[in-house]
This record gives sequence, C-alpha cells and structure tokens, in this order.
Amino acid sequence: MSESSKAAHSTERPEHSQAGVSSGTGTEYTRDTHYISTRITADGRDGFPVEPGRYRLIGARACPWANRAILVRRLLGLEDAISLGLAGPTHDARSWTFDLDPGGRDPVLGIARLQEAYFRRDPDYSRGITVPAIVDTTTGAVVTNDFAQITIDLSTQWRDHHREGAPDLLPDEHRDEIDAVNQRVFTEVNNGVYRCGFAGDQRAYDEAYERLWTALDWLEDRLRNQRYLVGDSITEADVRLFPTLVRFDAVYHGHFKCNRNKLTEMPTLWAYARDLFQTPGFGDTVDFEQIKQHYYIVHRDINPTGIVPAGPDLSGWITPHGRESLGGHPFGTGTPPGPADENERVNPAHTPLP
Amino acid sequence: MSESSKAAHSTERPEHSQAGVSSGTGTEYTRDTHYISTRITADGRDGFPVEPGRYRLIGARACPWANRAILVRRLLGLEDAISLGLAGPTHDARSWTFDLDPGGRDPVLGIARLQEAYFRRDPDYSRGITVPAIVDTTTGAVVTNDFAQITIDLSTQWRDHHREGAPDLLPDEHRDEIDAVNQRVFTEVNNGVYRCGFAGDQRAYDEAYERLWTALDWLEDRLRNQRYLVGDSITEADVRLFPTLVRFDAVYHGHFKCNRNKLTEMPTLWAYARDLFQTPGFGDTVDFEQIKQHYYIVHRDINPTGIVPAGPDLSGWITPHGRESLGGHPFGTGTPPGPADENERVNPAHTPLP
Repeated sequence: MSESSKAAHSTERPEHSQAGVSSGTGTEYTRDTHYISTRITADGRDGFPVEPGRYRLIGARACPWANRAILVRRLLGLEDAISLGLAGPTHDARSWTFDLDPGGRDPVLGIARLQEAYFRRDPDYSRGITVPAIVDTTTGAVVTNDFAQITIDLSTQWRDHHREGAPDLLPDEHRDEIDAVNQRVFTEVNNGVYRCGFAGDQRAYDEAYERLWTALDWLEDRLRNQRYLVGDSITEADVRLFPTLVRFDAVYHGHFKCNRNKLTEMPTLWAYARDLFQTPGFGDTVDFEQIKQHYYIVHRDINPTGIVPAGPDLSGWITPHGRESLGGHPFGTGTPPGPADENERVNPAHTPLP
Repeated sequence: MSESSKAAHSTERPEHSQAGVSSGTGTEYTRDTHYISTRITADGRDGFPVEPGRYRLIGARACPWANRAILVRRLLGLEDAISLGLAGPTHDARSWTFDLDPGGRDPVLGIARLQEAYFRRDPDYSRGITVPAIVDTTTGAVVTNDFAQITIDLSTQWRDHHREGAPDLLPDEHRDEIDAVNQRVFTEVNNGVYRCGFAGDQRAYDEAYERLWTALDWLEDRLRNQRYLVGDSITEADVRLFPTLVRFDAVYHGHFKCNRNKLTEMPTLWAYARDLFQTPGFGDTVDFEQIKQHYYIVHRDINPTGIVPAGPDLSGWITPHGRESLGGHPFGTGTPPGPADENERVNPAHTPLP
C-alpha cells in the first residue's frame, strides 16, 4: 500500500498544519499521509505480536477512516480479541476526547484525551492526533494509527482469532484488483470529498468536484451489473467505499459542496449502499447523529454557526434495494456476524435501523 | 395584504440591522416588513398614476422577491409599459449594484448603485436597499419597494396595458383563497427558508425546520390532485411559490440547511415546479448561476470561503412532468407569452432551457 493511499481522521483541519503533497495551484487540499507505521503482526516483527486482550482500538463513530476499522473488527468477529474505545463526535484543537464515557475518561485507558496515548508513545509527538489508533493497554501508548494497514492486518495477521464464518475480505485471487480499486476510491472518493470541502478557492473546488463526480460515475457504472466492487462477495474494497457513501447525503453533499446529486439520486450507488447498510456489520456501525455533529460543529471555518442540519431524511436506508437479483454471496462461504454487543450498539435514536 | 405578508430582498443580512418582530427565543430570524408603501395606481391617488414608459422596475435575477415581479411583468406582457433594470448577483454592504451593465451603470437611470435611487426619494433613507423597486424615471427616485403590493398592482392597476391574452392572476372568484394560500406560503415557505438559514442557534433552526417541512408536506398533499394552487389556472399564488421552489435545491437545501429532502425527492412538488418552469414566463426568468452566486458569495457569515457549489445537476428541470393529466388551463382563456425580448434573455449557460 503506497504512502499516498493512507489517511486517518485527526483534528479540526489537521491537514493544514502538517506536511502533505503540494499541489499545482497551492489551494488544493492535501492530506498528511505520514502515520506511525508500527505493525501488530502474527510474528511480532515490530515488537507488537498479535495477542488477544492486549490491544484497544480507539475509534469514533463520526470518522469514516475509523468506521472502516470498526466494521472490519465486527465483520471478522474480533470484538473479544481487541476491545473498542470510542471518542465523542466533537472536539477542540487538542483533538479527540472521551467525553461520552463516564467521567469523561476511557474506562480501560483511563485517559480523557486520545492525545495522552500519543504522548506516551512519543512525548514530542507533533503530528495529527488521529483515529483509528490502536493502543497497547500494557503501556497505554499508541502502537499504530496507520489506518490503511490496520484493516489489512486485522484480516491477515489476526486470522487465528477471527470468528467462525468470518468472511475473507482480502481473497488472494482478487488482491490485485482490490488494491487497484482501493487506490482509485481512496484518491478520488474517500479523499475526494475532503478535497471539495477543504478547497482553498473556487478553482481548486471546481477541479475537485470534477474529479469526484468522474469517479462516482465510474462506480455507478461498475456496480450496475455486479453486486460488490470485486468478485461475488464483500471485500476490503466495499469496506473502504461504504463509510464515504453512508456519510454522503448527511455531510458531504451540503457541508462539503459535493452536490451534483445526492446519493439517493444515483440509482445504482444508492441501491449498493443500502444493500451494504442492511448487511450485518455495516449499518449497525453507523451513527448518523454523531457524523453530522462532528462535521458541522468541528469545522467552524466552513459552518461558523455550528448549527447541525436536521436532515436528511434517513428512512430510505432501510427500504428494499433489490440487489439480491444480481447474485453473489455477501459473506462468501461464511456467515453474517450476530448482533453487536450490547455496550457497542449505536444509539437507536441515531439510526434508521429497527 | 397585511404588513406581515410583505418582504423584499435587500443587503447581505439586512434583517439584522433593522426593526422586526421580536421572537420568543430572541434567536429566530425576523424579516423587516416596513417598505415604501407608495402605490402606482390607475387613479394616481398617491401621486403616481399608471403611465406607460414612465417607470422602471429594478430587479435582480438572484432575488426571489424580485423574481415574482419580473415574472408577473412578463406573464402580463408589460415589458413595453414598464422597462426592466437588473442589478448583478453579488454586492457589498451598500447593496445592489449595476455591475452587469456597460460601464457599471443602469443605462436608463445612469446610476451605479440602487442606493442612489433610494436617496433621491429620501436623502436620509436608512432602511434596506431592496429589490424589487420601481423607480420614476422622470426623477430617478424610488416610488415603491413594497414587493407584495407591486405584483398585485401590476395585475389590477395596469390592466389597460396588459398584452392580449394575458392571464388573470387574481380572479375575483378565487381572491380569498389566493390570499389565504399566499399568507401561509409567505410565512412558512418563502420566508421559512430564510428562517432556517439565518437562525441564530440550534433551537431556532430546529423550530424553523419543522415549520418549513410541515408547510412543504401540506403543499405536496394539496397539489397531488390539482395542477395549480388555486383553481384551474396559474394565479398569483403559483407566482409566489415558484421562486422559492426553483431556488430550493440550488441554494436553500445546502446553504440554508433545508435538507430533509431535495425538491427532486418530493414527487408532487417537483413535478409541479417543473410544470411551471416549462411554462413560458416562468423558467425563462430564472438564472441559476446568478442565484447561486448571490447566496454563496454574499452570505459570508454562512459560507466564509465564498466558494460557489458546481451542483446541483439541473437537467431534470426540463424532463416531462406529466401534470397535464390533471387537467387545467395554464393561462385560463388566455395565451402564453411569446419569447422574452432578446435583451432580457437569461444567459443560456445559466439555464437548462434549450
């Protein structure tokens, strides 16, 4: 996975205070792609061997990059092997806090700000305080925040601890195709919406908008006659596209001005997104209210009032999608995950799921 | 027409520097409803008798309140009787300018800023510099900016100068119903979108959003089995709703956070709006580009970057609407207006009309 295909969710506009690829115009948004690249592996080559109960995944329901790690953990049934801590949706310049937890502290790490776990790793840490991050509970220090590698390692390094019936999200026979799709989805879609929303001027925005919609039209076409992005089952490619699609109408369409169409107006992508949303392990990780709060409250330079829109109407997410007729098996030869653990359920008021 | 059913389009956030009805919370947006109420009448009771060639209507393509006056003038064929001046879409705190005209001056009035015509009426004029305004070309002074009365007087006082086949937009037999519908449409929809967009806090916004969608659901229901708002033909009621609907997805949905649905997701209202848009005299007064530029560039307190979204896709506006099957006669016993005068045509790049 190349440097340029990595990203994670940090502070308000972390990208502006960090290194990034420079652009032609100087006003194009560029994402910092330097992460703590230590890996947790089966062979422990970086000093952090796979070990159930030792690590804690810190995410946030709001963040699309964290959403991926959360849903891969759930699809693979790693809940008992890797615990989950969730930062609240909004934060100040010092980044993510555990304000949703009793006493405002993560119950396992005992810290109020995720920053503290970064400083335990490196007292001089000066880059973005991002989620997802995996923390070693024996030291309280961040092991890695390299989001792109995290989901790959959950699939490949933690295989011995997957649940029975876990899907293979990175099947060898499709790996090249998955990597190619992921690369385009990352640069053009996952990051493409940010390129629109954080554009520094009209020209940078207009270019970003064209790139985004070119890619969404490509996806609309690609998915017209096939149920999933690669092969006949859910893979890492679907996992990476879904968090952007599920946030599209709630935040990217209006707040980031990605407004050629709503997702609901792209018939194929909308049906594809609903299909995934209704698949166990996907929609049940999505908290629309926290998503909206994050973007509209944290990005005061885009939304100075901090007022959070009451829309969009979410009821369409649970309507029939009709994608079964395209064939395919969501979990391949495996099975869907069971319901989420009770203490990990999304607030029922924040989701259209029954 | 009561005081509370009047409004017009003035400076950036004129309402905040002017008197208005106070609200319960103190954060609800309230519109200044005090206008220059002099009338141009057939009997000249206010000193301004109807007289073809004497008055100039100053509008702006961007402004919904001016849009009404422009479209009534066109539906009734008053182009030769009352000339039209158009301010550009964006402006500073001193309000509307004639920056689209050669030399930046209105070719008839010879002024650069509409403000000058207000000061000729009253050197101490301190209220909003609003469009629509009707100016007496013999003095260069504003006669009236009372938008609600302007369209009524165009229908009732200028009758001798209407074109052959002009529709009766205020038929006596429907006048009470038109007034009642107009009252609700004004407070809940025309002004309702502004109440959402200019809300001072989350509570004021949430209340405004509920009011708006309650009214839009009422309209969706009312129009399901009848082609027009009142009776079987276009009336002043349709004239007043149309400018808000045509701006809905372009600016109110995202910029003003009126985002439960897009207009395109309200099947009846969307078909009704397309029907009107495709009716001569309606869609041909609409400049989507100027509309977007106005809201997104002028309201810097809502959109600090001033970046104008490239969306939405407008191609749907010229698709079949199917409303003919409901019956009705758009112009009653009259006829549609011919094409707009060449020097009054909307920039073809700013409209989906062929």
